[in-house]
Amino acid sequence: MPLAEFEALPVVAGDVVTAPTGAVVMKFGGTSVADVERIKAVAERLSRAREAGARVVGVLSAMGSTTDDLLDLAHEVSPTPHERELDMLASVGERVSCALAAMALIDRGHDAISLTGSQAGIVTDTTHGRAKIVEVRTRRIHDALDRAAIVLVAGFQGVSTASEVTTLGRGGSDTTAVALATALGADVCEIYTDVDGVYTADPRIVPAARKLPAVTYDEMLELASSGARVLQLRSVEFARNHSVPLHVRSSFSVGEGTWVVAEEDDRVLERAIISGVAHTTDETVYRVRGVSAAPLFAALADARVNVDTIVQTGDEIVLSASAEDHSATVRTLDQLDARWSVDAELGKVSVVGAGMKSHPGVAATAFGTLEAHGIEPVIVTTSPIKIAVHVRRDDVERAVRALHDAYGLGAGDALR
Amino acid sequence: MPLAEFEALPVVAGDVVTAPTGAVVMKFGGTSVADVERIKAVAERLSRAREAGARVVGVLSAMGSTTDDLLDLAHEVSPTPHERELDMLASVGERVSCALAAMALIDRGHDAISLTGSQAGIVTDTTHGRAKIVEVRTRRIHDALDRAAIVLVAGFQGVSTASEVTTLGRGGSDTTAVALATALGADVCEIYTDVDGVYTADPRIVPAARKLPAVTYDEMLELASSGARVLQLRSVEFARNHSVPLHVRSSFSVGEGTWVVAEEDDRVLERAIISGVAHTTDETVYRVRGVSAAPLFAALADARVNVDTIVQTGDEIVLSASAEDHSATVRTLDQLDARWSVDAELGKVSVVGAGMKSHPGVAATAFGTLEAHGIEPVIVTTSPIKIAVHVRRDDVERAVRALHDAYGLGAGDALR
Repeated sequence: MPLAEFEALPVVAGDVVTAPTGAVVMKFGGTSVADVERIKAVAERLSRAREAGARVVGVLSAMGSTTDDLLDLAHEVSPTPHERELDMLASVGERVSCALAAMALIDRGHDAISLTGSQAGIVTDTTHGRAKIVEVRTRRIHDALDRAAIVLVAGFQGVSTASEVTTLGRGGSDTTAVALATALGADVCEIYTDVDGVYTADPRIVPAARKLPAVTYDEMLELASSGARVLQLRSVEFARNHSVPLHVRSSFSVGEGTWVVAEEDDRVLERAIISGVAHTTDETVYRVRGVSAAPLFAALADARVNVDTIVQTGDEIVLSASAEDHSATVRTLDQLDARWSVDAELGKVSVVGAGMKSHPGVAATAFGTLEAHGIEPVIVTTSPIKIAVHVRRDDVERAVRALHDAYGLGAGDALR
Repeated sequence: MPLAEFEALPVVAGDVVTAPTGAVVMKFGGTSVADVERIKAVAERLSRAREAGARVVGVLSAMGSTTDDLLDLAHEVSPTPHERELDMLASVGERVSCALAAMALIDRGHDAISLTGSQAGIVTDTTHGRAKIVEVRTRRIHDALDRAAIVLVAGFQGVSTASEVTTLGRGGSDTTAVALATALGADVCEIYTDVDGVYTADPRIVPAARKLPAVTYDEMLELASSGARVLQLRSVEFARNHSVPLHVRSSFSVGEGTWVVAEEDDRVLERAIISGVAHTTDETVYRVRGVSAAPLFAALADARVNVDTIVQTGDEIVLSASAEDHSATVRTLDQLDARWSVDAELGKVSVVGAGMKSHPGVAATAFGTLEAHGIEPVIVTTSPIKIAVHVRRDDVERAVRALHDAYGLGAGDALR
C-alpha cells in the first residue's frame, strides 16, 4: 500500500480497512514490559489471542525507563546529540523487549518472530526524532502471519526513505500500532496500558470518576490534547483518519477498557452529552505582540514547538505550549523580535463531549459553575465539542471537581 | 567484493589488499568503551587518527557487560532462547556504543556516522550465534570515508543472506575489524584492548615477562589457542588469510603494542626462537573409547563444541574442549554411546615460537626443565611451532615460570 504521506493524509473510511481478517494489533507500553515477569505476562496475553484464532501482531515499547536512560547517556556524551545518531541509539530498547517476548512465546510452543521497525516495513520521512510514517510494507508481517506466527514489532521506529533508522517521537509506539492495524486491516488496535480505560476525570482528583465504555475519535482527540495522557494525540488522529477501532485497556487486568470509535458507532450513539473533564498544568501561556500570526506559527513549527491553544482578539496573540518546549519557544520569540510575556501559573480545565454540538447550554453551565465556586476564567477557547478554560493553577483541581459534579458525571450519578 | 565464503577461504596475499589507501581500522573492546568517559577517550583517539590524515573506521564492542546482561535477561525469559531472537537481542549493545561515539565525534566538530553491521555491509551466512562473514559490501563506508567522515561500525554482527540479524560469536568484534580492514585494504587493523600487547607469558604469573614487539600470525594463532586471551583465534586466522597487519595495543596508553604480521615481515625476521609460554586451565580433557574419530568429531562439531587438543595412540581418543562446552560435550558423548571418562584437574602449558622449525632441541629443553622441577607431562602434543604439555592443574604456574626461565624470555635476559 504505497501511499504518499500515509500518516498525514486522511483516508476515507473503507478505503484502507478491508474486510475483517481476524487480525488484531496489541500494543504494550513501557510499564507493561518493565521486567521479565511482565514480558512473560505480555506473552501470555498474546498467546491467548493467538489460541483464540486471531492473527496476532504485538507492538512493544522499550522496557521501563530504558529509552530515557539511553537519552541520558547521549546527553552525557554531547550537550546537543546529533539527531541521526540519537535515533540509532533510542531505537534499540524496543528491539530488546520484542526479542525477549518472542523468546517467551517460542518457549511456550508458539511460532513467533520479532521485527525491527525497518524489518516490519514501517517507512517514514527523513525527519529524525519526529518522523512521519509514509508507507507500511506488510509483506514480511503477512508472511509470518500466514504461517500462524505471532509477530512482535518494535514500536516507535521505522526506516526512512533514505534508509536511515528513524524514531516517531514520544509515544510513537501507539502510532506504530495504529499504522499497522490500518495497513493490515485489523479488526481492532488494542492499546494496553497501566490504567484500565478513559475516565470522566482523573480519578486521583475526582474519586467518583467513571470509566467510559466508549468515546468518539474527536472526543478522544480533545481529551488527549486537554491533558488525558492515556493515548498519544497523533495516534488517535491516525486512527480516526483510517477508521481503526481502538480499545484502550489495562495490561494488568482482563476487563473491557474504553473503545475509541467513529461517531456513528453503536457504542457511542446513545450516550451522555459530556464525556469528561480533562485538565493540564504542564503548559505555559505566552502573550505576544509585534509579530503577526503567520510568521509566528511558522517559526514555532520550525522550532518543533507543540502549540496547543491559540487565541487572538486584537493586537495580542495568546498561545499556550508544552512546558518542555519552553526554551525553544523563548528562543523563537526572541529571534522574531516579538514583545512577549509569560502568563505564569495558569492551568487548563476542559469539558469535552460530542453531544455538545446538539445541546445548547453546556457553556452556560460551565461558566455558572465556575462563578459559583469563585474561580475566574482567564482565557476561554472552544471547539464544537469542547470548552477549555484557563484558570489560576491553584484553582485547577477545584474546577475539575466542580464541573465533573455539575455535569453529573460521577459513578453515583444517573447516566444520561 | 563478492567472495563466496569470504571468511572461510584463504586468499593469497595481494589478492585483496590493494595499494595503501591510508585507511586504518581501530577496534575497541568492551572495557575500552565501558562508560561515557571511556567512550569520549575513544572518540579522542579516533579524532587524532583522522586529524593525522587517515581514513578512519572504528569498530566498537558493547559497553562493559551489556551483552552479558542481555543474555542473562534472555535466559530468565527462556531456558533455551531461540537463536534468531538471541541475535536480535545480543546485537543492540554495539549499536549503542557506536551511536554514542559518533555523537561525541560530531560534538568535536568531526563528520561521523555510526553503522549497524547490516548497514556496514557485513553479510554473513545464516548460522545464528556463530555466523561466518561471506561478503563485505563497503559502498556505504566508502561513501562516508570519501566525504572525510569517521565511520563507527557495530562489531560482532552482520546481516545474513536471508536478511536476518546475525552475530559472529564471542570476540566477534575482532573478526568484524579484520574483515573490514581486508575489504577496505587498510594499512593496519589496530586492536585496542586493556593490555598493551602480547607478552612472553602472563605477567600475573611471570613478573619478568616481556612485551613482544612482533609475532607471526602462526605464533599468534598458537598463543591464542593456548590460552593467551588477547585476540580471538578466528580473527587471527582471518588476518593471516588476507595478510592484514594487526597491531594489538592498549586503549589506556599511547605506546606501541605488539604487531602480528607475516613471517617474511622485517619485524619478525630476526628474533628469538621462542616467542612465549602460554597456559590455560579452562579446558576439560576427555578419554573416549568405543567410537571412531570421524563420527565423534562430526557430532562434536554439530554440537558446536570447540575442540582443542586431539590425540590418539590406540583405541583411546583423548580430546580437550573448552570447559564452557562441557555439558554439550557430555550430551554428545552419551548420544554416541561412547565409553568415556574425564581426566579432571589438568591444565595445559604451551611453548610457542616460529624459530622452533629450524632449531632442534627445543623439545628437549622443555622436557628436561619439567623433569628437573618434578612436573609430570600427562599429555603431549606438538605442532611445527608449538609444544603443548598437559600437566596437573596445580603444577601449571610453576611450569610456566620454569619454562619462561629456561628459554631466557624474561626482561632481564639477553634477547637471542
